[in-house]
Amino acid sequence: MSRILVGIDLGATNIKIGCFDSDLKLLCKTSVPTRTDMSPEQLVETMGQTAEELLAENRMSAKDVAAVGIGAPGPSILDEGIIINSPNMPLFKNVPLRKMVGERFGTPAVLENDANAACWGEYVLGAGRDVNDMVFFTLGTGIGGGVIVDGKLVHGFADNAAELGHIIIYPNGRLCGCGQKGCAEAYASATSTAARAAEAVEAGQQSSLKKVLHENGRITSRDVYEHLAAGDSLARRITDQTAETLAILCINVLHATEPQRIVFAGGMIAAGDILLNRIRDFFDRHIWKMKKENVQICFATLGEDAGIIGAAALAKRAENPAKLHSKS
Amino acid sequence: MSRILVGIDLGATNIKIGCFDSDLKLLCKTSVPTRTDMSPEQLVETMGQTAEELLAENRMSAKDVAAVGIGAPGPSILDEGIIINSPNMPLFKNVPLRKMVGERFGTPAVLENDANAACWGEYVLGAGRDVNDMVFFTLGTGIGGGVIVDGKLVHGFADNAAELGHIIIYPNGRLCGCGQKGCAEAYASATSTAARAAEAVEAGQQSSLKKVLHENGRITSRDVYEHLAAGDSLARRITDQTAETLAILCINVLHATEPQRIVFAGGMIAAGDILLNRIRDFFDRHIWKMKKENVQICFATLGEDAGIIGAAALAKRAENPAKLHSKS
Repeated sequence: MSRILVGIDLGATNIKIGCFDSDLKLLCKTSVPTRTDMSPEQLVETMGQTAEELLAENRMSAKDVAAVGIGAPGPSILDEGIIINSPNMPLFKNVPLRKMVGERFGTPAVLENDANAACWGEYVLGAGRDVNDMVFFTLGTGIGGGVIVDGKLVHGFADNAAELGHIIIYPNGRLCGCGQKGCAEAYASATSTAARAAEAVEAGQQSSLKKVLHENGRITSRDVYEHLAAGDSLARRITDQTAETLAILCINVLHATEPQRIVFAGGMIAAGDILLNRIRDFFDRHIWKMKKENVQICFATLGEDAGIIGAAALAKRAENPAKLHSKS
Repeated sequence: MSRILVGIDLGATNIKIGCFDSDLKLLCKTSVPTRTDMSPEQLVETMGQTAEELLAENRMSAKDVAAVGIGAPGPSILDEGIIINSPNMPLFKNVPLRKMVGERFGTPAVLENDANAACWGEYVLGAGRDVNDMVFFTLGTGIGGGVIVDGKLVHGFADNAAELGHIIIYPNGRLCGCGQKGCAEAYASATSTAARAAEAVEAGQQSSLKKVLHENGRITSRDVYEHLAAGDSLARRITDQTAETLAILCINVLHATEPQRIVFAGGMIAAGDILLNRIRDFFDRHIWKMKKENVQICFATLGEDAGIIGAAALAKRAENPAKLHSKS
């Protein structure tokens, strides 16, 4: 075993680390909690030690690591491998993470935005493995995005492309955490779906979710979809707006880069077909009549491993720059 | 003179033809009316004869033409050079225009969407000549679009990318000609801006435009901007919605592909700074607060020649495929 690729997914709660062979077959994986008070040096040392232990437990040597890929949140200068700042790590300011990780592992390293890394994972091995043009959404606390045009991740002029959750769907609508009003994220993330339900219950609307809010002190998007399945009419109205928002978001990205496939990922897709079919219904209702659209709207297939798979796939490209835009 | 590039812009009312040297310097140009009852064969023969006459008048020979580029409206299969159908030419169904033009001129030829060709012209020689990532809008009868990512036109999975006028800004809003509701085009094209003004006057709103409608039987977008400049308050409300729609459209494309520059072209930019500054105002009002955006919103600089320049620039690439993604 001499060509191990390491994929790292730096998340708000966990650092996920996976080891892959050169065909991107997952050999082993682990995760350690992220601490928000970590310094960049502590984080990189944690990554290094955790990876070494994982390799040793699986009878591999750190010397066999060929390259490391990292998916990380926050604005970055990707070409230089620098994280400008991180929403969850207050000590991170202009951190040259790629260089630090490369030195710790003694290998080439590559830094990518976390949503882009997960998008690339789905593109290479998951729901987009047979297409060249894809758009990717993660439905979680926010709505993350990734755009692949002709086999390449779109990074944009200053590495801030594909902030698709902040496409404005309802001008002057709900305030988003980003400061805009009416963003898709303010309606259709898992968090916003749950928040709209809680607000409606608190405003006195009738719903079986009232008991949930009373007993648990909160409503989750999972609660909303469970009560939808049980026939609650408020849950229907709330989830219809989620699906309609996502459908219009699909139409808007379709008219921008015309992907062959639009892939939804993230915690909220656990809701299943009741969510996916409703997005497709609203898409059909709102889409133009100029031509029949054949874009495929589907769910991701790699689950939580998409980030480490994508990071490892990007590491493979870092190891061999000639393959920079190849899936293999 | 041995390497002449011919750029053709096939429009609804005119066929524009320009001859360029290998540095894309315009040598001469002309135009002939488009007739909607033209067969593909008649159109190609008209293009050929008109180009030959233009060259002869300018002491050049058709034998010196190195390549021909064509920008044409309507859905196409660009890789195969086929126009599927044309909004203005009912006889056009699955026309292999690239092959026909190439045979008529005896040179390589290339076919591009008309808005993309104009976008490419501005990118190579106009308002985008010093950037690599650009978005382009034409404000005319409709709103055409072009997207350039990392120096390449985005064509999309089925050559229908960059239909940016059909990004939905106001869900369930005004009906667009495409069948969708609330498209940018339904509010902010030159035609829609004028239509909204006429509807408001007909609904009894006070305006100095009432006299225009009465005397001319119609209101144009030029009338609306002239009455705005003269202080009419209805013209202010109408043009504010145009500018606000375009500003939100800018925000939405920014969050998709993050261009460095957004370029507006088309008849309505004759309104000048009164339009451009208002778009910038609304952009600043609606854009997120996560980071300061440095995208430049500006007007095109090539006027009506953008289409023939872009087509000629694409012809140059067709002549030398190795330069396919180079500006030079």
